[in-house]
Amino acid sequence: MAKRFNFATFAALAGLLACGTASVAQNTPAKTAEEEDVERVGDLVLANHILADQGILDGFGHVSVRSAKNPNHYFISRSRAPALVTAADIMEYDLDDRPIDARGRNPYVERFIHSEIYKVRPDVQAVVHSHSPAIIPFGVTDVPLRPISHMGGFLIKEVPVFDIREAGGDATDMLIRNKELGAALAAKLGKGTAVLLRGHGDAVVGQSIKHVVLHAIYAEFNARIEAEALRLGGKVEFLNEAEASKIAAVNDSVVERPWELWKNQALSRSQSR
Amino acid sequence: MAKRFNFATFAALAGLLACGTASVAQNTPAKTAEEEDVERVGDLVLANHILADQGILDGFGHVSVRSAKNPNHYFISRSRAPALVTAADIMEYDLDDRPIDARGRNPYVERFIHSEIYKVRPDVQAVVHSHSPAIIPFGVTDVPLRPISHMGGFLIKEVPVFDIREAGGDATDMLIRNKELGAALAAKLGKGTAVLLRGHGDAVVGQSIKHVVLHAIYAEFNARIEAEALRLGGKVEFLNEAEASKIAAVNDSVVERPWELWKNQALSRSQSR
Amino acid sequence: MAKRFNFATFAALAGLLACGTASVAQNTPAKTAEEEDVERVGDLVLANHILADQGILDGFGHVSVRSAKNPNHYFISRSRAPALVTAADIMEYDLDDRPIDARGRNPYVERFIHSEIYKVRPDVQAVVHSHSPAIIPFGVTDVPLRPISHMGGFLIKEVPVFDIREAGGDATDMLIRNKELGAALAAKLGKGTAVLLRGHGDAVVGQSIKHVVLHAIYAEFNARIEAEALRLGGKVEFLNEAEASKIAAVNDSVVERPWELWKNQALSRSQSR
Amino acid sequence: MAKRFNFATFAALAGLLACGTASVAQNTPAKTAEEEDVERVGDLVLANHILADQGILDGFGHVSVRSAKNPNHYFISRSRAPALVTAADIMEYDLDDRPIDARGRNPYVERFIHSEIYKVRPDVQAVVHSHSPAIIPFGVTDVPLRPISHMGGFLIKEVPVFDIREAGGDATDMLIRNKELGAALAAKLGKGTAVLLRGHGDAVVGQSIKHVVLHAIYAEFNARIEAEALRLGGKVEFLNEAEASKIAAVNDSVVERPWELWKNQALSRSQSR
Repeated sequence: MAKRFNFATFAALAGLLACGTASVAQNTPAKTAEEEDVERVGDLVLANHILADQGILDGFGHVSVRSAKNPNHYFISRSRAPALVTAADIMEYDLDDRPIDARGRNPYVERFIHSEIYKVRPDVQAVVHSHSPAIIPFGVTDVPLRPISHMGGFLIKEVPVFDIREAGGDATDMLIRNKELGAALAAKLGKGTAVLLRGHGDAVVGQSIKHVVLHAIYAEFNARIEAEALRLGGKVEFLNEAEASKIAAVNDSVVERPWELWKNQALSRSQSR
Repeated sequence: MAKRFNFATFAALAGLLACGTASVAQNTPAKTAEEEDVERVGDLVLANHILADQGILDGFGHVSVRSAKNPNHYFISRSRAPALVTAADIMEYDLDDRPIDARGRNPYVERFIHSEIYKVRPDVQAVVHSHSPAIIPFGVTDVPLRPISHMGGFLIKEVPVFDIREAGGDATDMLIRNKELGAALAAKLGKGTAVLLRGHGDAVVGQSIKHVVLHAIYAEFNARIEAEALRLGGKVEFLNEAEASKIAAVNDSVVERPWELWKNQALSRSQSR
Repeated sequence: MAKRFNFATFAALAGLLACGTASVAQNTPAKTAEEEDVERVGDLVLANHILADQGILDGFGHVSVRSAKNPNHYFISRSRAPALVTAADIMEYDLDDRPIDARGRNPYVERFIHSEIYKVRPDVQAVVHSHSPAIIPFGVTDVPLRPISHMGGFLIKEVPVFDIREAGGDATDMLIRNKELGAALAAKLGKGTAVLLRGHGDAVVGQSIKHVVLHAIYAEFNARIEAEALRLGGKVEFLNEAEASKIAAVNDSVVERPWELWKNQALSRSQSR
Repeated sequence: MAKRFNFATFAALAGLLACGTASVAQNTPAKTAEEEDVERVGDLVLANHILADQGILDGFGHVSVRSAKNPNHYFISRSRAPALVTAADIMEYDLDDRPIDARGRNPYVERFIHSEIYKVRPDVQAVVHSHSPAIIPFGVTDVPLRPISHMGGFLIKEVPVFDIREAGGDATDMLIRNKELGAALAAKLGKGTAVLLRGHGDAVVGQSIKHVVLHAIYAEFNARIEAEALRLGGKVEFLNEAEASKIAAVNDSVVERPWELWKNQALSRSQSR
């Protein structure tokens, strides 16, 4: 056991160092699509650790990234707790959710969230599905999640809620476990950045892994602030659409700043050993 | 002192490594009941550390597992804070709560919670009693705890509340300190997975140690989400029984995934030294 | 600077090891009052670290213990953040708040909280004054803090609130900075275990350092549970006085169990370096 | 990468040790303005780490200090997450926000918050701008933030709210990105210690770096307590202006006590590696 354990630790560190190298390479010109994919896989391993460290993912939930080389493929971990994901866990799927080289690794049941969004949103390069705790209450009430903090500007306006009963009837197991449910969820997302799943969590998208991490973390932050503000009992002022759109563009442009922090925090507080 | 201290640390680590070994052995065919019990004791030590690390247990509360070799026996720590429990602290009791080999170790006063549930619920292999903080408010109000997040599906429907005044009168010390009170609590639990204790906490059951840990952690999670949702002030939609039952079965089937995470977290953030 | 820093660390560790030794000696017969005081000072250093680690004290607040050798004296740190207190910081005062051997060390302004309680409550051996965050709201509203969790049984019934305006007028600096204010606070405490200070915090007492730590930590816990329960919106059931008194006695009798945990947590997560 | 990484760590430690040295020098007579500025830069690096460690700043927000040598200059980090700031990141600006020696380092977009406050408030030596989570709800409702805890006495009375729509119209990106907006914010601050920014955060000032850190941390604390108290549902009693002013002066006079704690906590829980 001790040896297997050490090996796992080593594999994790190797994956993270690979990310580091990838980051350094980021601004290098003439990067090939293959090199870009190596970088994306490295960032994907890190994103798993960051989203766990920031309390967005626990033992469940997942993050994926589209392949640069083949935009009809995407990368996602095998079925594993995000805080423990290493480069060896990352699998490649096509948009029919067939693994390219499974090697016995089990998939996440809800990978259809990812594939169906990639199909209809070519602008989306990365997807997070989480059980983000401050988000869930907004999915089970008729109080809409809206941008109230400028860090939540990317929500733009009221976030739609997907109730699986609309697409799957009233006796599902709540999971997005096939293409039909995934497609219905992607339709509810529409052109937005986030969609809530009733009694379940959310799906958030971004133009890169770093952006989807930014959006997932500040969707939770915005939900916490909104719940607190509503409870104060006075009149509540939200961002209007112009404000939300403009600050969203600014925040997206400085994503490297929080990413550097989150990477450091995740590495220094690593939950695997 | 320094020597006793180091010895305790050593004993703790030895217990945890034993768990690791047990885990590796888990899928080996032809495991004897004795080997199964070694594994259960190892998982029980880990469950103590995990439930403390996840904030379900503090200096109080306890977790037990039924013996595979003798289903009328169960294992539980001596009276000690769960975060500090080592293999040397685990005691074996019969269902009349007589220790098999006490060696001077003090029992938990409320061990009757465990024995009386094991008596009437042969399907139950493990029990947690906790003062889970988000749970307690639902035991002192007439607002029922219900499955609102799909991770709380195992609650199935409204969780019953045991008020000790019904069985013990209005001047008890609030504790389940004898068979009669334990039996009354077990009756209130019925065929369910959780029962609340008014002004006190809860008892949660599972078909294995890993499952009872899953249930204890997500009972707290579900309670937190429900409280937040109720406070948002709108109409609240809960899981219906079909949804709750189905997702409960799915979540139970993937218990190894969060267990791997919780084990890593508990070991990397160990509170004993 | 590096040298002074290392010395402070050394002094802190020396203080904590002294505590360990004292604990081992605890059940030894024929302990002299001097030996008992050495033990109390050791526990006092630990109590400072524990209360900081548990979030009851931050940079402010303090804990004291009565002298066994001279019950008209008490021990308390010089004016320093509790998480950083070492044995070298502990000062001895008489009940007129004159330091026995100040050696240039500055006192806490509000030490009168301690001396005035010791004067009128011979049963009290230890006092905590804190800005415990969940407690403060109950001191500024007319909603009383009451035992709602069995771990808060020691509160017995509604906790009195001391408004400094009653004793000091409406233009004080809010602090218990003299004997008169201390005496008025002690009178409001009466025979109880806790008293709230409006817009400020609380004072909690115990029959030993370990007990006052138990009371301070679970006063905060009980306040958090009560606030949550009240917000659920239904009818709330509190412990009655018989229940509260009986469970308080039981909890006091097992104080060594959580103390062992808190000591380990404080030492393993030490905030000084 | 590994080498760059190690260098960054080294630079961070060098910055922090410099602070330590500066602290020792603090009470030395005849300190020159140059020596004072070295000390201020050291404290500024620490303040960045402290405010991140205490949850006041995340990847965004900033803290600055006025130059002692040239009171029309101020020091602030380049655009970087506060937890990662080292001495090498600190830049000097004049009050027209021109960098003295940029060396390619990028500025914070919202540095105008700092310069415009320094222009009109000669008593202010340090400024924090944060997205302090408990503060934001008070900026989006008509429920005023007021001193309710004696640690929040420095707020004195109702804290003004700056709505950027008043000065910038209803289609800004929410940021204080030029002199005009900075001046309008400084005007709203007036002679106070804090001002809220609608849908954004706050700006807090102090007579030194240590004081602005004290104010930023306890503004958040006071907001949390006030929100909790308001939700209990009874009548709420706030500090009156005499009480608030007097305790503010006392708390300011003991700023070294919490600063010593926060410094230790930030160093022992450092988020960079």
